Amino acid sequence: MRVIMASNASARDVGEVVRIAHEETGEPHRVEVAALNGRLVVSIRGPGPAVDPGVFASMSGVESVEDAEPVYRLAGTGQVAGDERSLVKAVVELPDIGVAIGAEAFVVMAGPCAVEDEDDLLTTAKAARAAGARLLRGGAFKPRTSPYSFQGLGEEGLSMLARVRAETGIGVVTEAMEPAAVERVAQVADIIQIGSRNMQNFPLLREVGRQRKPALLKRGMSSTLEEWLGAAEYVLSEGNPNVILCERGIRTFSKHSRHTLDIGVVPAIRERSGLPVVVDPSHATGSSSRVPPMAKAALAAGADGLLVEIHPEPSRALSDGFQTLSLEEFATLMNDLRRIASAVGRTL
Amino acid sequence: MRVIMASNASARDVGEVVRIAHEETGEPHRVEVAALNGRLVVSIRGPGPAVDPGVFASMSGVESVEDAEPVYRLAGTGQVAGDERSLVKAVVELPDIGVAIGAEAFVVMAGPCAVEDEDDLLTTAKAARAAGARLLRGGAFKPRTSPYSFQGLGEEGLSMLARVRAETGIGVVTEAMEPAAVERVAQVADIIQIGSRNMQNFPLLREVGRQRKPALLKRGMSSTLEEWLGAAEYVLSEGNPNVILCERGIRTFSKHSRHTLDIGVVPAIRERSGLPVVVDPSHATGSSSRVPPMAKAALAAGADGLLVEIHPEPSRALSDGFQTLSLEEFATLMNDLRRIASAVGRTL
Amino acid sequence: MRVIMASNASARDVGEVVRIAHEETGEPHRVEVAALNGRLVVSIRGPGPAVDPGVFASMSGVESVEDAEPVYRLAGTGQVAGDERSLVKAVVELPDIGVAIGAEAFVVMAGPCAVEDEDDLLTTAKAARAAGARLLRGGAFKPRTSPYSFQGLGEEGLSMLARVRAETGIGVVTEAMEPAAVERVAQVADIIQIGSRNMQNFPLLREVGRQRKPALLKRGMSSTLEEWLGAAEYVLSEGNPNVILCERGIRTFSKHSRHTLDIGVVPAIRERSGLPVVVDPSHATGSSSRVPPMAKAALAAGADGLLVEIHPEPSRALSDGFQTLSLEEFATLMNDLRRIASAVGRTL
Amino acid sequence: MRVIMASNASARDVGEVVRIAHEETGEPHRVEVAALNGRLVVSIRGPGPAVDPGVFASMSGVESVEDAEPVYRLAGTGQVAGDERSLVKAVVELPDIGVAIGAEAFVVMAGPCAVEDEDDLLTTAKAARAAGARLLRGGAFKPRTSPYSFQGLGEEGLSMLARVRAETGIGVVTEAMEPAAVERVAQVADIIQIGSRNMQNFPLLREVGRQRKPALLKRGMSSTLEEWLGAAEYVLSEGNPNVILCERGIRTFSKHSRHTLDIGVVPAIRERSGLPVVVDPSHATGSSSRVPPMAKAALAAGADGLLVEIHPEPSRALSDGFQTLSLEEFATLMNDLRRIASAVGRTL
Repeated sequence: MRVIMASNASARDVGEVVRIAHEETGEPHRVEVAALNGRLVVSIRGPGPAVDPGVFASMSGVESVEDAEPVYRLAGTGQVAGDERSLVKAVVELPDIGVAIGAEAFVVMAGPCAVEDEDDLLTTAKAARAAGARLLRGGAFKPRTSPYSFQGLGEEGLSMLARVRAETGIGVVTEAMEPAAVERVAQVADIIQIGSRNMQNFPLLREVGRQRKPALLKRGMSSTLEEWLGAAEYVLSEGNPNVILCERGIRTFSKHSRHTLDIGVVPAIRERSGLPVVVDPSHATGSSSRVPPMAKAALAAGADGLLVEIHPEPSRALSDGFQTLSLEEFATLMNDLRRIASAVGRTL
Repeated sequence: MRVIMASNASARDVGEVVRIAHEETGEPHRVEVAALNGRLVVSIRGPGPAVDPGVFASMSGVESVEDAEPVYRLAGTGQVAGDERSLVKAVVELPDIGVAIGAEAFVVMAGPCAVEDEDDLLTTAKAARAAGARLLRGGAFKPRTSPYSFQGLGEEGLSMLARVRAETGIGVVTEAMEPAAVERVAQVADIIQIGSRNMQNFPLLREVGRQRKPALLKRGMSSTLEEWLGAAEYVLSEGNPNVILCERGIRTFSKHSRHTLDIGVVPAIRERSGLPVVVDPSHATGSSSRVPPMAKAALAAGADGLLVEIHPEPSRALSDGFQTLSLEEFATLMNDLRRIASAVGRTL
Repeated sequence: MRVIMASNASARDVGEVVRIAHEETGEPHRVEVAALNGRLVVSIRGPGPAVDPGVFASMSGVESVEDAEPVYRLAGTGQVAGDERSLVKAVVELPDIGVAIGAEAFVVMAGPCAVEDEDDLLTTAKAARAAGARLLRGGAFKPRTSPYSFQGLGEEGLSMLARVRAETGIGVVTEAMEPAAVERVAQVADIIQIGSRNMQNFPLLREVGRQRKPALLKRGMSSTLEEWLGAAEYVLSEGNPNVILCERGIRTFSKHSRHTLDIGVVPAIRERSGLPVVVDPSHATGSSSRVPPMAKAALAAGADGLLVEIHPEPSRALSDGFQTLSLEEFATLMNDLRRIASAVGRTL
Repeated sequence: MRVIMASNASARDVGEVVRIAHEETGEPHRVEVAALNGRLVVSIRGPGPAVDPGVFASMSGVESVEDAEPVYRLAGTGQVAGDERSLVKAVVELPDIGVAIGAEAFVVMAGPCAVEDEDDLLTTAKAARAAGARLLRGGAFKPRTSPYSFQGLGEEGLSMLARVRAETGIGVVTEAMEPAAVERVAQVADIIQIGSRNMQNFPLLREVGRQRKPALLKRGMSSTLEEWLGAAEYVLSEGNPNVILCERGIRTFSKHSRHTLDIGVVPAIRERSGLPVVVDPSHATGSSSRVPPMAKAALAAGADGLLVEIHPEPSRALSDGFQTLSLEEFATLMNDLRRIASAVGRTL
């Protein structure tokens, strides 16, 4: 919100607006006074529900109040109902499979990058389930840099996911790439993934916000936290209260791994939003040998879960084989994670 | 393409594949030999039309050939018909308004960030035309970080653009944000803009590729040149030969301006693609005082045109006023550009 | 400067401090009011000479004034004597060779990356001079990523530079890498270069500040403008008023060229500092074909000069041959630059 | 190393060189074949001791062999004596205080950013020791962006560190900023810190390489892993075998914390170097609330230790108070780390 002072406002008027601005807003807010075109402007910024502009409109020396809504409001509270200002941690419930994301349990979602073969998918789902994973990840629709690359099996891939889900009881997380596909993906998926490239595909976000399945919103490759929470807000503001954030590596100058996994965003989110956050170490590092250390780091830093690529035979995977764990490597990782989970007060 | 050698292939076999790979491909190609899982793999990468895999499939010691298509093929030649390998500069013709982008003339597109008011728009179009601009830019649909920000006038904005176009004869470039909107935008626009956030919205790119109006494809905030040309390829490969690339600043650590305008990508494109390229100094810098020097730099570096924000009264603009030139500032800039254009052998 | 208000200060007191803060400081200053530990703090930040803290110390409601010096003060004015607040453009005079940097003339410094061979150096110096370059660049001491790479000819290289300077009358710019070497380098050089890796080597900066030869301060690979001006301030504050800034590309995710040449920093400097600024397109792009377009862009954007790598036979250069122009390519570039210089009101 | 093939070399000759190159080098090496000026060049790159060029020099079809030394050699093995090629983990022994870095124990170094007050320092050292820290960190010489900022107590700070070390038996790690200061710092410090800004201050690195105290080498703000290991090589190649790498955050576009802590570099180092690596979450995050989660992440990812800022009363610290833990917060963190250390098979 910006309170524009009249050109003949007294210093006392300004001081009073500043004082009230501090009184009316909680700690994370910032109150700044700047000179703009010869007038003083008091700007008030912060994550939570905005201050009532009426408070200022009638004060002495105030010319006008611009009630700029904050970039995000629902994402900043972790609550979609009620109007408390405090940062309550949101829990995304998946009652069909008895899973809660954002609660005590660390939730692992594992599977192939792209759904390719039903036998492999079934083998993967059973092994993932046995090792402790609660959801099967796998793309039926794949966004690819080149139009000539494998784009996923599409509808056939969705059907495979549905059958494997029915047979094993594991949950499914899979991507929707355009508004027109959301309804069909929602029939199969327990969680609808929104990919990095689509983090600011606003028509898609709105469409996902209009249905009931939770969304897993991957961070854009160069998105700030504010933009990410703004994107979550598009889903939340349409009425879907269930958004899970997913950190998957950012673009930096650094070249030792494919992207730079920004583990530090996990505690940063905790200070600004109640939404659950999971981490994808597979896409971030691009190398299977780096996945286990980064998975452990994510858990230790406070993430609520993981998205991990696994495959019965990684070298056969059509997409992203280098970063994929074998089923055995995954089982070993899960055991290691279980010990750390216990050390940090979580279950797995 | 990757040529996988048999485990019992002789060194001579390898050498022969390498030699042929170099013979069959043009200069920008790279031929690499790597050991993978105990076998030698000769990989051949590059922009142009791929080598025929059949050349290698029958060679001694070759186990298999993976014919990975290059990320982009049409974007790499600047030609959508024919099969010459050379880098021919593409020219995007706009016959309705007598403009060609990518030819001798430096083409300036100017207007408000968002279409807000029809009188302002008409004033702007007339002033832009008088100063030498050939197209009016203006968003009817605006992608915004927050769902609570002004999202554009939508259909009403398109109608305003259509009326102003009819009255002044200036061309129109405006954005389409989703596949379902492309047809309607194409009725009004001379060029359909695809925004940075949608650079890898592949369903949108394909839809734009299926109609006839040229596309102006803004670079994603952290896109590599390869990803950008891959995105262009989505449009080109659907049959639309007219893509104009638009550099608009990238995300870096640097904070003295909103983004870092990567002027160096202009000559980089020239070495890999024949597509025309224009530069948007307004969004890149976020500051009207920085727009003129960067506009001049773009022209001097070889860009084919500009996208500039102008407004009759920048401080009244609802969106991005700080980076908007007044009509007077724009006229001055055009005069300055005219002198430089003459010095570098172009017209304006 | 931070003015800490007493806990019982009235709103009027606060308003008065804000008003005075705006009155006492020029436009580029920012005045902010924040709550800290239950008290209001008015902070005043900006480039120019600081406001007298005494102005605030005695005001009603003020508890204390912290007179934090700005990061840079001399670099922000372009003046090292006098106390005017305005941004005066500094001109670095090189009377021995009749050159002024920061004035009307666009000053080109050209030569090999590293001094290797005296005949080549002499040939280069003559050709550079003939084409219009005013200084010869060439490293005698070379900072290299690996201890096993060629580290320059050292003292022998300096002697070569001195002889070529004596014979041709061209000025010399060469690098000093440690405080102990500054005195010797200053005997030969007209300008002492401080390399990117040493931008924040503060003992070296101070030593260069204690002698009389101008410094050419290359921007660090990931330095903000504030850090860069802070580094300049280390030289200026020791009494050496002659600092030339040199943009040479920054580290970003972008991979189409070696670094990303941040041309936009040129107008950004103009708004915050009077120091002259030159651009090094050779190191930035790492490719000789990209040097001419970026050199032209730098001139058009308002830079005061260039640092360009040239060599009689680039493929023979021991260091950085790929980015080096031949003498013929350089002469062509200079002719192109001359036309643009004339179009933008400068000489060459 | 680059093997340049003669222009009349046969394909068989090329294949044989490629085969031998793969045979002679270990897995992390890359063998590439490229065409350069009409000739094939086989380049062999990798971290370990180079292949003997003599192996290739006499082969059929080989014109010449360029024995480019790798950027780093000693840093790539973790061994400074012997010539085994394998990646042996180096352990830096500090016999005076009975500490080994790079072995089973996770080594925590804690203390104030800058040494300011002897009583505070003694209190800090005792609390750090009691909580399990093995070294006291604290700067006597502080590199600062502005010449007007507090630059450390200098010699007086060193003396304080020496007295506190004598009284408490805790080890000391402190920074040397220039070659001339190394000898004096080495008299007091158990480990000499080389700061981020000096990572490529090669004269300083060489000087530290010529004395016996271990070096803690902080990563430059935008350094690649290769540059960092190259910098380590400057120390190692002078004969000092004891280098500890320290990740402290890199410069990226991301703004939610001061820098982006690149936890992923820890496993990346493990694949390329045997040198121990520690992490500094305080400078990286710039916020005390973020330090504990990132410290835990570093341990879980496999780091060998931490550098943490602590102070009896963080709000009183002259430098970097925002990122400093109180002594109580530090004790809590150490307890949390102890549980995770046990879960990952380490001691604390």
